[in-house]
Amino acid sequence: MTAYDRLNSVNNVLAPPSSSSIVSQEDIPQKPYRTTVVGSGNWGSTIAKVVAENCIERPQEFDQTVRMWVYEELINGEKLTEIINTRHENVKYLPGIMLPANVMAVPNIVDACRGSDLIIFNIPHQFLSNILKQLKGKIDPRTRAISCLKGLDVNRDSCQLLPDVIFHELGINCGALSGANLAPEVAQCKWSETTVAYRIPDDFRGRGEDIDKQVLKHLFHRPYFHVHVIDDVSGVSLAGALKNVVAMAAGFVDGLGWGDNAKSAVMRLGLREMIHFANLYFPDCEERTFTEESAGVADLITTCFGGRNVRVGKYMAKNKVAAQEAERVLLNGQSCQGIFTTKEVYEFLSKRGTIGDFPLFHVTYDIIYNGFPMEKLPERIERSDERY
Amino acid sequence: MTAYDRLNSVNNVLAPPSSSSIVSQEDIPQKPYRTTVVGSGNWGSTIAKVVAENCIERPQEFDQTVRMWVYEELINGEKLTEIINTRHENVKYLPGIMLPANVMAVPNIVDACRGSDLIIFNIPHQFLSNILKQLKGKIDPRTRAISCLKGLDVNRDSCQLLPDVIFHELGINCGALSGANLAPEVAQCKWSETTVAYRIPDDFRGRGEDIDKQVLKHLFHRPYFHVHVIDDVSGVSLAGALKNVVAMAAGFVDGLGWGDNAKSAVMRLGLREMIHFANLYFPDCEERTFTEESAGVADLITTCFGGRNVRVGKYMAKNKVAAQEAERVLLNGQSCQGIFTTKEVYEFLSKRGTIGDFPLFHVTYDIIYNGFPMEKLPERIERSDERY
Repeated sequence: MTAYDRLNSVNNVLAPPSSSSIVSQEDIPQKPYRTTVVGSGNWGSTIAKVVAENCIERPQEFDQTVRMWVYEELINGEKLTEIINTRHENVKYLPGIMLPANVMAVPNIVDACRGSDLIIFNIPHQFLSNILKQLKGKIDPRTRAISCLKGLDVNRDSCQLLPDVIFHELGINCGALSGANLAPEVAQCKWSETTVAYRIPDDFRGRGEDIDKQVLKHLFHRPYFHVHVIDDVSGVSLAGALKNVVAMAAGFVDGLGWGDNAKSAVMRLGLREMIHFANLYFPDCEERTFTEESAGVADLITTCFGGRNVRVGKYMAKNKVAAQEAERVLLNGQSCQGIFTTKEVYEFLSKRGTIGDFPLFHVTYDIIYNGFPMEKLPERIERSDERY
Repeated sequence: MTAYDRLNSVNNVLAPPSSSSIVSQEDIPQKPYRTTVVGSGNWGSTIAKVVAENCIERPQEFDQTVRMWVYEELINGEKLTEIINTRHENVKYLPGIMLPANVMAVPNIVDACRGSDLIIFNIPHQFLSNILKQLKGKIDPRTRAISCLKGLDVNRDSCQLLPDVIFHELGINCGALSGANLAPEVAQCKWSETTVAYRIPDDFRGRGEDIDKQVLKHLFHRPYFHVHVIDDVSGVSLAGALKNVVAMAAGFVDGLGWGDNAKSAVMRLGLREMIHFANLYFPDCEERTFTEESAGVADLITTCFGGRNVRVGKYMAKNKVAAQEAERVLLNGQSCQGIFTTKEVYEFLSKRGTIGDFPLFHVTYDIIYNGFPMEKLPERIERSDERY
């Protein structure tokens, strides 16, 4: 029995054999891939947990230590990194969930990423630019990345997707992970699906030498977290950003007590506007990412029923308060991405002169930023079917 | 001021002008169209209400009386038709909702349909064949129809859509109406959308002489019930039938307490299987009916969150009882269409040898009819993404 066979049989005990758990000898890297998760909010910590579980099960493929960059803070006088590294729990952002012991919290961002083969970005959008500044010039260009961020980068006339921002700043190839993934449910190992998008770069070094689709499947797929790996990085990123605008509108309908039919109508039109936005400005997106993938229609559904943005929209409608007030009351310092994305999308579309094509995005902006009465939402979107 | 202008100004008071409320003189029929609703359950009574409201507002276009066929029964010794015609309330199936006085309940099916220009079928699927038997040979072939039914007609090797069944039995052109329309919400005038599908037949008699898309929009569209009229009768009918299978599976996930991510995953895969079914067996269906219309993705969402089928699935999971027992306990004599459709779809696909392409439909059947443990649902659908 070779070492390879022995390791495979250990793996088979830990995870019952399935088509995705078989590793052919040529896919075993010379040196196990080192991974880093940048971010330790509830979603960052959850993804670190998923990845660390797979690293333990696949010692041939992955280095056993998963570094997690943690913004250092004191919890009752104790450093959060020390709590995580000794008690294996992120008591602040993911309390009650044990992290595998091979998740190593690192307070310095450069140390956390040094020598990594794959960096997984999982921080709120608004921290990205500062993080990238600290990493610029310090990352080997052969490093690969996956963005779990939700958002868009709208500047003057341009609208950039976040994997592209990461590529431009650090010069490293970046994919995306997004799906119907409310973090607390994934952390509790409740079954869900996700979509990973990755394009093999021109300087790909070959099987067993570089991150490819199979490596990503092995790193993220769990019995409770089903991964589908596709090419469409733009579609996955865009869907993850735009769904939060739709969720705000769905929240209004919830708060008004208009029922399931009305909410479905808002989600239907929202999905259409997401696809229309992609067709107009990111023609490399594939429509089926929106209609068939977990990152598309499924994430839209879960976000409109269980996420932060829908809760903020609902609270606004029920209590007649502004978005920022609802965010402050409900989210305890966490951010409601939809408030920002709604504004960015509106400003971008207005400059391009196409806001008229997006009646739901438009009315959502007017409700949040111009005090437009949300009861009139149906009138504003009524004729949209005649348009495209 | 002509009679036409006077009537138009009355209409404008009743319903504020919108693009859809303008009737050009050539569209005014010689004789106002007569309409009949066949069926008086909660959805039948609700559609009669919608139609009757529009008939009042459009006296040039529509006869003022909307006949509604009611299966006669005694309620505390009083005939249901008499209660509806005097108290204007369907106390049995839509209690608490006032029907317009121009809804006329008729106990005899042939009397109800005689001389109608448009018959709107809105009964449970299982009553259709008996109804069609009674009408056969008694309907003018120039009559048109709209089916609001949900279901499929699977016999031996064939799978027929219900508008086609109506056409074959009565020889009249039949469209379909379906959408994200939980009946109680529409009855209460809560805002929703729907899709009407209609193909202009070869023997179309011309504008003002025959039912066309504009007539249908005028008959069904309300300020609280937004109608989009399309061509794809097959897509609308098929989506309305198949979504009930998905809703059963969504109910299992609900009852198991697996959360929103898991439910979205089931709905995502369900939507894909619905489209795949259409592509294989009804190639005239348009994919966008499923992904863009109220009858597609929106109805799937509302059905998986608020309908009968999801409640039955959930009850099965929570109480570990059979589907028929859950139906009996929950629905008070009403039927859970998903139980039947799941079987019909399974039998049809098995005979065709394609059931392997439909892991969600298959496992839903096995759970309802073969006692397959619903906890194992994720394993059964895991590899489906690799398939098509």
